[in-house]
Amino acid sequence: MTMLGRQYDTQVCSIARALEVVGERWSLLVIRDAFLGVRRFDDFQRSLGVARNVLQSRLERLVEEGILERRLYQERPPRHEYRLTDRGVDLWPVIFALMKWGDRHAYPDGPPVVAIHRGCGGEVDEHRICRKCGCPLEARDVQPRPGPGARANAAALHPALA
Amino acid sequence: MTMLGRQYDTQVCSIARALEVVGERWSLLVIRDAFLGVRRFDDFQRSLGVARNVLQSRLERLVEEGILERRLYQERPPRHEYRLTDRGVDLWPVIFALMKWGDRHAYPDGPPVVAIHRGCGGEVDEHRICRKCGCPLEARDVQPRPGPGARANAAALHPALA
Repeated sequence: MTMLGRQYDTQVCSIARALEVVGERWSLLVIRDAFLGVRRFDDFQRSLGVARNVLQSRLERLVEEGILERRLYQERPPRHEYRLTDRGVDLWPVIFALMKWGDRHAYPDGPPVVAIHRGCGGEVDEHRICRKCGCPLEARDVQPRPGPGARANAAALHPALA
Repeated sequence: MTMLGRQYDTQVCSIARALEVVGERWSLLVIRDAFLGVRRFDDFQRSLGVARNVLQSRLERLVEEGILERRLYQERPPRHEYRLTDRGVDLWPVIFALMKWGDRHAYPDGPPVVAIHRGCGGEVDEHRICRKCGCPLEARDVQPRPGPGARANAAALHPALA
């Protein structure tokens, strides 16, 4: 974090700005999990296998940056969950592009997860357009399904894949 | 880097795999610059304002991962340049998605860079499709141009914007 020099800070660049907010592996994996329906601290922790203090600091940073919203879901004792804001949901194309790159270059025998158009069941292509009906798709239109490269325990880790 | 735990390593996930390769701000900014036509160490250094040892280690990592290729461009004295491989060029949708998010959320008064379809001059939409001719576009079809939010010195930093 502190490695970012002064010149970097003053770069007029949308990519540099975006990376200041989410340019860190754990942050992007937290956002991935949020898209998959994970909301509670312990569920993020189980899914990511990251140290609790690291997870806490990433969640706090994402709340400060307006990517996640912290909501009370139980009063006694008070318990909070984390949900994507609109600004966070707008990161879906980034997550999707990373997934497609990983599908192609890390899982040549078949992707662990396939994205499906919720409306018509068509597969989502690399441009986030439905192969079946031709609709340009947003995050809310798309449902993840275990793909040919999925492990048996994927559904246990991610409720959205169940 | 060493923060990545064992459970993370074994996650069957294309996003996690992609982030193992490029999930670091400087790496993604090096890749951004490579797309903008930067090839030489000193030019990366000037553009990023990053410490030379940090830049060296990021370039080496990207070469090891097959994202960049190191080529001799001068024999006496030997000088090398760095070019994107096909595997690296495939990261363009990630860079583009980060740019679009930054355009929307960091530069509401207008993006620093606009992507233009090289063939017909149309603007590239969020789905990487030409607004004018409707073509789905690849990295090689697209040219960056200074946008309304550009600074006067952007062209000096990035040859592709000149």
